[in-house]
Amino acid sequence: MKTTISKIGLYAGQEVTLGAWLANKRSSGKIAFLQLRDGTGFIQGVVVKADVGEDVFAAAKNLTQESSLYVTGIVQTDERSPSGFELTVTGFNVISESKDYPITPKEHGTEFLMDNRHLWLRSKRQQAVMKIRDQIIHATYEFFHEHDFSKLDSPILTGSSPEGTSELFATKYFDEDAFLSQSGQLYAEAGAMALGRVFTFGPTFRAEKSKTRRHLIEFWMIEPEMAFVEFDENLEWQEKYVSHLAASVLKHNQIELKTLGRDTAKLEAIAAPFPRITYDDALTLLHEKGFDDITWGDDFGSPHETAIAEHFDKPVFITHYPTSLKPFYMQPDANRDDVVLCADLIAPEGYGEIIGGSERIHDYDLLKKRIAEHNLSEETYEWYLDLRKYGSVPHSGFGLGLERTVAWLSGVEHVRETIPFPRLLNRLYP
Amino acid sequence: MKTTISKIGLYAGQEVTLGAWLANKRSSGKIAFLQLRDGTGFIQGVVVKADVGEDVFAAAKNLTQESSLYVTGIVQTDERSPSGFELTVTGFNVISESKDYPITPKEHGTEFLMDNRHLWLRSKRQQAVMKIRDQIIHATYEFFHEHDFSKLDSPILTGSSPEGTSELFATKYFDEDAFLSQSGQLYAEAGAMALGRVFTFGPTFRAEKSKTRRHLIEFWMIEPEMAFVEFDENLEWQEKYVSHLAASVLKHNQIELKTLGRDTAKLEAIAAPFPRITYDDALTLLHEKGFDDITWGDDFGSPHETAIAEHFDKPVFITHYPTSLKPFYMQPDANRDDVVLCADLIAPEGYGEIIGGSERIHDYDLLKKRIAEHNLSEETYEWYLDLRKYGSVPHSGFGLGLERTVAWLSGVEHVRETIPFPRLLNRLYP
Ligand SMILES: [Mg+2]
Ligand SMILES: [Mg+2]
Repeated sequence: MKTTISKIGLYAGQEVTLGAWLANKRSSGKIAFLQLRDGTGFIQGVVVKADVGEDVFAAAKNLTQESSLYVTGIVQTDERSPSGFELTVTGFNVISESKDYPITPKEHGTEFLMDNRHLWLRSKRQQAVMKIRDQIIHATYEFFHEHDFSKLDSPILTGSSPEGTSELFATKYFDEDAFLSQSGQLYAEAGAMALGRVFTFGPTFRAEKSKTRRHLIEFWMIEPEMAFVEFDENLEWQEKYVSHLAASVLKHNQIELKTLGRDTAKLEAIAAPFPRITYDDALTLLHEKGFDDITWGDDFGSPHETAIAEHFDKPVFITHYPTSLKPFYMQPDANRDDVVLCADLIAPEGYGEIIGGSERIHDYDLLKKRIAEHNLSEETYEWYLDLRKYGSVPHSGFGLGLERTVAWLSGVEHVRETIPFPRLLNRLYP
Repeated sequence: MKTTISKIGLYAGQEVTLGAWLANKRSSGKIAFLQLRDGTGFIQGVVVKADVGEDVFAAAKNLTQESSLYVTGIVQTDERSPSGFELTVTGFNVISESKDYPITPKEHGTEFLMDNRHLWLRSKRQQAVMKIRDQIIHATYEFFHEHDFSKLDSPILTGSSPEGTSELFATKYFDEDAFLSQSGQLYAEAGAMALGRVFTFGPTFRAEKSKTRRHLIEFWMIEPEMAFVEFDENLEWQEKYVSHLAASVLKHNQIELKTLGRDTAKLEAIAAPFPRITYDDALTLLHEKGFDDITWGDDFGSPHETAIAEHFDKPVFITHYPTSLKPFYMQPDANRDDVVLCADLIAPEGYGEIIGGSERIHDYDLLKKRIAEHNLSEETYEWYLDLRKYGSVPHSGFGLGLERTVAWLSGVEHVRETIPFPRLLNRLYP
């Protein structure tokens, strides 16, 4: 029976054949232990000289790291192994011998590993991060589908950008200038006026010369947008969604979390509702903590966000930022024109901002005024203004950064490990 | 109770409030019928003068197309309506009055509608197509998750392209040249060697000066890639996946298929297995049908594909194309070096090719030879060659074009209606 490691539990006591790679091995004179992987999991193959004979045993002992093979054996229940099973090998065929595999069990430098990203992905740790990423993606589709959101694919190539023209990748679209999207939000707003509740989920691009553990040049964003939803309900959707992500990872990725040494107690605390603090109160808190580098109207940097987050064991919403710090489309507070109905969601443990969101301006005249104040071209935003001309409604939305969320839930230090082929400053290969 | 049209069946006999837009209306002296939409569905609101009084009735009669409102009413069971319910209106508040909405119930030209795509999406027909698109996306994630595939996000920005450098969008990546991806396949192959079974699902770009009903400049592709899978099993995955898509749309989109006037009997026929015909036999068939414009070694055009498809009531695999017609990475037939182990899947009813797939070359020396024969740079493909150096295994994959599939299953003539904001030749707005 040909099967995969993930399904091997269905065949306890039976003989199966796996296509697999040799991740690692150790052996004595009489017995060899093969660490096999096939992408669906890891399992130990036990080769006993007395059972398989001299030749097969010698071949097993000579297997090199990352050689590919079809291996046949009897499935044994083994409670000590993470998968719960091991394989008593009865025979194997090498498909392709791997010589001098560059990533050995010893330590390697980051640049070397990144140059070999196409191979590094095979390591146990990188596979674990990729499986958690996959689960978060799946849980996202599950969540929004269950709540009647339609996936709305916003365009990547646009003639303009939502927040001005800095940090944009440019290309020639036949005879026109085009730019790579930094956000699908404005298109999602048009979608929400048609379909009620929508979400985008696609790649976004920022040509930013940042080299921090939280920045990628190309990253994936989830941007829900909801008609007839105001500020408070927007926060409720966010905490519900993020709690669903944490619960899904806890439920489906115990093996991966263990591989990564993640403190799961920290994830178990992630349940709605999340605490909220206004920008004003957050500023007071920072001053109390001794930060004297910041006054009203300044944006929070990573150290500030981390200091605020340390106050809570759940993600925290920082709300009502100064209008001057935020994009043109955010709805002002009804009682105070100098702050907007926005919130950033800051993850615990120093992982920083994972969501930015707000209620959007629905009044035509105010939006037109803001476009002028921000020196944006009214012509470019004509279609966006139309959404306020024809049946405008209160609406809100937010954007969650996939890679930062994967980093946080996985407990991985740097976002470069959270995407299969990271694009960083000076890193466009492989 | 605030609710949405999709959930209104839960409140039969009760009073509810909906946020909605006026899609259309008709009225007599005593009764007005409001066609309401909220993105989750359509429902008829009935306003009876004798019940609501003179003022409310007059206001209802004066409501303009696409005005937004909060409307309150009693949910009534009504078997004649598509949703099964209608609303006896007790009152409403206009949120925003819509004046001179540009898309009236009369006929409009395509360019006008495309210029107003952000509004056109609100029409019943466009919503129906978008909901079918959403369902196909959802069914895709469902299918691959169930079968242990991991989503693998391949990069959009790359230093090179899989099939040479024609028809590529170029950009500056800081000091380097970069291109927008036309396919995630090569990266998916690296992913399959790590994770066993993967699929990409993202936007792809082709700077092609084509202006046909089957071409978009920016379109979405689903590209699964599977380790230890050879040619025949690859076709089995494809027919299983496409059958799942058709069944999902039939199961969940009956209202939308009706709106679009789709002949659902044609979709009910879409069940695995699908017929297969070799390139050689297809050529013979074409000659029998009187096509004298094609000889062995020529690629099939749309008229040829349509003629072949007409022979079958299901999608048909055309297999074993001449090696010279296909990309460098396809595995040659073991018995004949002049054809490769590939298949294109041609949809019925003239919708053309929806899948291209193949077994991939797993032999290092052969792949290296092909790269040279195609005048590709070995340096660019060094990482790709590594996949054959370290534990190479037989593997296969395919790519399904989302928009063509949506067009086919929806019965929509032109792919421009199958994506929220189409990018076409001379069309980068809105
Ligand atoms: Mg911030
Ligand atoms: Mg073709």
